Amino acid sequence: MELTTMDMLQIFHMNKGQGEESYAKNCTVRNKILSLTKSFVEEAIQGYLSNELPETMVIADLGCSSGPTALGAVSEIINMVNAKCRKMEGHPSSPKFMVFLNDLPGNDFNGVFGSLSNFQKKLTEEKGGESCSCFIAGLPGSFYGRLLPNKSLHFVHSSSSLHWLSQVPAGLDDKDNAKMLNKGKIYMSMTSPNEVINAYKLQFRKDFLLFLKCRAEEVISGRRMVLTFMGRRSNDPTSSEDNFYPWELIAKSFNSMVSEGLIEEDKLDCFNVPYYAPCLEEVKQLVKEESSFFGHRFEAVEVEWDGDVKLSNNQSDEHSLCKAALAKGERVAKIHRAVVESMLERYFGKIVMDDLFQRYTKILEDHFTNNPNNSTMISLVVSLIRN
Amino acid sequence: MELTTMDMLQIFHMNKGQGEESYAKNCTVRNKILSLTKSFVEEAIQGYLSNELPETMVIADLGCSSGPTALGAVSEIINMVNAKCRKMEGHPSSPKFMVFLNDLPGNDFNGVFGSLSNFQKKLTEEKGGESCSCFIAGLPGSFYGRLLPNKSLHFVHSSSSLHWLSQVPAGLDDKDNAKMLNKGKIYMSMTSPNEVINAYKLQFRKDFLLFLKCRAEEVISGRRMVLTFMGRRSNDPTSSEDNFYPWELIAKSFNSMVSEGLIEEDKLDCFNVPYYAPCLEEVKQLVKEESSFFGHRFEAVEVEWDGDVKLSNNQSDEHSLCKAALAKGERVAKIHRAVVESMLERYFGKIVMDDLFQRYTKILEDHFTNNPNNSTMISLVVSLIRN
Repeated sequence: MELTTMDMLQIFHMNKGQGEESYAKNCTVRNKILSLTKSFVEEAIQGYLSNELPETMVIADLGCSSGPTALGAVSEIINMVNAKCRKMEGHPSSPKFMVFLNDLPGNDFNGVFGSLSNFQKKLTEEKGGESCSCFIAGLPGSFYGRLLPNKSLHFVHSSSSLHWLSQVPAGLDDKDNAKMLNKGKIYMSMTSPNEVINAYKLQFRKDFLLFLKCRAEEVISGRRMVLTFMGRRSNDPTSSEDNFYPWELIAKSFNSMVSEGLIEEDKLDCFNVPYYAPCLEEVKQLVKEESSFFGHRFEAVEVEWDGDVKLSNNQSDEHSLCKAALAKGERVAKIHRAVVESMLERYFGKIVMDDLFQRYTKILEDHFTNNPNNSTMISLVVSLIRN
Repeated sequence: MELTTMDMLQIFHMNKGQGEESYAKNCTVRNKILSLTKSFVEEAIQGYLSNELPETMVIADLGCSSGPTALGAVSEIINMVNAKCRKMEGHPSSPKFMVFLNDLPGNDFNGVFGSLSNFQKKLTEEKGGESCSCFIAGLPGSFYGRLLPNKSLHFVHSSSSLHWLSQVPAGLDDKDNAKMLNKGKIYMSMTSPNEVINAYKLQFRKDFLLFLKCRAEEVISGRRMVLTFMGRRSNDPTSSEDNFYPWELIAKSFNSMVSEGLIEEDKLDCFNVPYYAPCLEEVKQLVKEESSFFGHRFEAVEVEWDGDVKLSNNQSDEHSLCKAALAKGERVAKIHRAVVESMLERYFGKIVMDDLFQRYTKILEDHFTNNPNNSTMISLVVSLIRN
């Protein structure tokens, strides 16, 4: 049985376990984004707490993934609430917390649950030894559907997840159509026909509106969401400002394998990644159109591909710049492998993965050597309040 | 580092996966108990629904385990509620369901979550194609502690779990003490000193009272719990009526390995299983003493060790009886291995497990050949209403 990209998405997950290629070892970008967006979350929490101090604060982290960052956002949020309560007049005791950790059913929840006792210990330490009542549940399922009962949530957080579409864009899931339009691409690009670009735009539109609609049922009026996900700088998805997606470099690696007869051309042309990086304007417009949430703050922040510092910032001479470029290439390849390998493997087979990512590493090394300044992507931060 | 039985319990779980020795393949007893106690659950559901039809019914299954039975109880409960609604005056639409599946963090939640899409499909089929709103979360943690916010539950179910104590009985967790008292035992027996028997009784008392206290905070007034767990016939824990525990046969297997120098005698004597099978009177008394719940119904039901039929019922001649006894021995050994292996392995090491369970199989075969009628255990069913 051949797997379609649609089947594949049902079982998409980050690389499991603790090995060299695991997501657990390679989630530095997510960490970086969490730290860059901390002030947004903090502002939202402060805003929320100035109106209400519930007995139990119900929080959902959507797309929590696994590994050491799985509980990172939740831990930040809880510590922020506790700190705010300590500073409030009359020093009210902190609320209890009911936390839902959501991801697709294929996520390594066993791994996340295995780290809960350490997590609880740390919360108590952060609270100066006072125990913190925090109930934690795993919530398997797609956030492009209902996850919880009506009016059950006080705070929703989602980091580095909403750029994943619910499916390959409608239209491109048709084999013949995709074959004709893609020509060695796995994502839209500067040279993609309008049909491909519109298919991606429309799929994101549909998914994001559905996401807002579902959350609108679940989030209590006046309560908040902070969402961060990959985006782009320009309104025009084919602008040269944004023309450089890691996906094009992965496609380049695939194409070199096609040219050597290691992967069938047709197979590659039928493949599309279910990913879309919108611009801020698109997101603002969709929030307005769906109308259940008030858009409190929208921003775009720059993140290095490996969550590290810019190459050009720290390298004094050409030799050390070159060395740093090679190291960055390897790091980025590892990070991307941890995120996308399971998805690519389901479709292309396990056997080509090592070769693919060796080529990708080489391509990234060349890229960073020649373009030391082209190494950032955009993360959008969206802070919303339920009307 | 040597593992204590206490460490071991923190990570106790049924054998994972789908293999021959997995719990998934060997959960027939649990299934049998579910079917034997169905009428109790049904009665409790009917009683509950005659007072209230909530918008969302919040259910917890405590000690859900993994494998095909993990969603069995929940599925029964939901179908019962839906059926009842169809029969009610005015045919009100069924409530939505928020289900918490609880077990220790070491449970194979990934496996359970992997079967959710089939589960949802089946629910829809059972409802005649109408979709059933059922939100499912995994709730990792010990039920001898708080799991959920105050007043959050409408219905609690727990099957085949509460005979597991929170720890090895206090007193017996002391190495020297245990060594002196146990003498080749791993559980209390007819010949155990009073100190051992009392340690088990007291640990169960402490654990069960704590369980009731925690659930009393979580279950809304007037709402229900149905609990089933292993018990014994007689008030006297050393009565000959109940003197035959599978644990004694497992101990016999261990002892034969000790006598051959394969396991150290001291190591065996320091080991105690964190298990207790109370009698109905004990449970009634504790419910009364804790006083948060009204004891609606208490019963004891007989279950074959393998959830199958009695040997003597179907065998016409001695030859076929003997064949059936051998088959039953093998079945029971497999079932018990799936449940207790992970716990024994942590303490005694993986390397002795195959040998141990081969001996246990042989001992069970002999037992059933010589005592074809001694093959049942007692499951207690307790139906409670929160005052």
